[in-house]
Amino acid sequence: MPTPTSIILDWGTSSLRAMLVSDTGETLDARETASGGIQFVKDGAFEAALMSVVGDWFAAHGSLPVLATGMITSRNGWVEVAYVDTPGGVPELAAGTKKLTLTNGAGITFLPGMRNPASKPFPDVMRGEETQIVGFGLDKDRTLVLPGTHSKWARIKAGRIDGFQTYATGEVFSLLTKHSFIAKAQDPVPGAEPDWQSFDRGAEFAASNDVSANAFLSAIFSARTGILDGKLKPENILDYVSGLVIGSEFRQARAAGWFKAGDEIGIVGNNVLNSRYGRIAPLFDLTIEPAPDNAAKRGIMLIAAEAAK
Amino acid sequence: MPTPTSIILDWGTSSLRAMLVSDTGETLDARETASGGIQFVKDGAFEAALMSVVGDWFAAHGSLPVLATGMITSRNGWVEVAYVDTPGGVPELAAGTKKLTLTNGAGITFLPGMRNPASKPFPDVMRGEETQIVGFGLDKDRTLVLPGTHSKWARIKAGRIDGFQTYATGEVFSLLTKHSFIAKAQDPVPGAEPDWQSFDRGAEFAASNDVSANAFLSAIFSARTGILDGKLKPENILDYVSGLVIGSEFRQARAAGWFKAGDEIGIVGNNVLNSRYGRIAPLFDLTIEPAPDNAAKRGIMLIAAEAAK
Repeated sequence: MPTPTSIILDWGTSSLRAMLVSDTGETLDARETASGGIQFVKDGAFEAALMSVVGDWFAAHGSLPVLATGMITSRNGWVEVAYVDTPGGVPELAAGTKKLTLTNGAGITFLPGMRNPASKPFPDVMRGEETQIVGFGLDKDRTLVLPGTHSKWARIKAGRIDGFQTYATGEVFSLLTKHSFIAKAQDPVPGAEPDWQSFDRGAEFAASNDVSANAFLSAIFSARTGILDGKLKPENILDYVSGLVIGSEFRQARAAGWFKAGDEIGIVGNNVLNSRYGRIAPLFDLTIEPAPDNAAKRGIMLIAAEAAK
Repeated sequence: MPTPTSIILDWGTSSLRAMLVSDTGETLDARETASGGIQFVKDGAFEAALMSVVGDWFAAHGSLPVLATGMITSRNGWVEVAYVDTPGGVPELAAGTKKLTLTNGAGITFLPGMRNPASKPFPDVMRGEETQIVGFGLDKDRTLVLPGTHSKWARIKAGRIDGFQTYATGEVFSLLTKHSFIAKAQDPVPGAEPDWQSFDRGAEFAASNDVSANAFLSAIFSARTGILDGKLKPENILDYVSGLVIGSEFRQARAAGWFKAGDEIGIVGNNVLNSRYGRIAPLFDLTIEPAPDNAAKRGIMLIAAEAAK
């Protein structure tokens, strides 16, 4: 087995994920526990919570450096780390880290999130996605999309993250299909393939030249009128709405200036949504640059290495 | 008391509202019962349900004609009435009614909803709003907005309803403020005035020249970033989101071609939302034509009078 050289933590509100990694970013061991989620840690006993999960890694491999991301760096976490403003790259993110020394002598580095002060009407924020962007590579000017509950569109320029914007697409999808009268979806069969025909139907409308597609609040009502008209089936409505809302995210991102037809963009992350985003990109005349594996881990290690200089 | 000349029913899934009205549309008596809602009526016993609510009106005033609107005219109601296609006016709506004779000899007329076959991606539908539009008056070419859970934008042209489009604004507002992580709102103090400053802040962003305002899926995230940035208070987030989503409805309706700056539009209905819509219209350089009182009742009586010819 390659030599472990660091421990990476994705430490969130509801769970703690820990990875033992080599200097090339290979994951040698991994653990996940709900009991380590910061909402379950009492009286600031974060070090004890950490040791209960990875104490044996230290015992076996010595005082490895620990790199921490996630809500553990927020006001409710162990150490609050201020956002680094865009534009910013690896040096700025490294300068924004905070460090502690654990009782066993290991150093723990807390990574900052990013803030876009140019966003309207208020500065936008992200916490974690910036490591994926850094891991993707900042060498070439381009736009990246990071699918998720709160997707990010980001622009790389001159080796730095120039700006970004959040789209609450995943959350709106969930609201519509779980709580709305418009598109109350039947539960999908576990493990079933998406109904790509319904997905494409929603996406193609969002990508169409019809001015109605500019009216998102109206377009979503089509999930209901499509069933009334016999063109959509209740069992496929989830995939139709998925295509429609992700397609609308692309349409709105284009209107907001994140790309134009003919561009090449990156789609980053290991999110299961990525295949859906990749399917929609060509409808907007976009080509896709492949993302490297484990972009987040690579980004964390690059920032930590710079911080250790 | 003026002489009662008809009984108007707004008969929905969850309740039955009945009004005893004069020939000038004055409401002389009114009743509402949840037990009459069509979901509670067993074995098609609609006539019995109706008589239990308004039987004494017939006893006192004779076999008055009954005019019925609402889901009672849908597949799950008493008599299914087909949608009338746009463009269509009073003659087409009257020709689309269906009639029954009650055991007591009174006639009951079921009014149709409307369908816009030109809507993309599927024909749009409304059931009830067309009576408000007719009651507003079809004499002049203009655009009307009918605020609601599923708002309608409609165009009057050459004395007919030329087309319309549904915006699920009220529903999206409810989803965001009741179920989302973005804008989970504190319950408002009952009877409290809206915080108009927060409402205006949301509306003004939606009406601004900033291209970000074209990205609805992103704009809603501002309810969260505004709090993170200390610019919005949790107790005002409901009004901020209200201004933002209604303002976005106007922005999208403009993009979809329903109006242009400088137009005069009508805002129709007795909905409590109307004051909010009226407050936003000037931000889009619109002037407002006053709506007559009781537009729905006037429209129902106009259509029924034509059907009785």
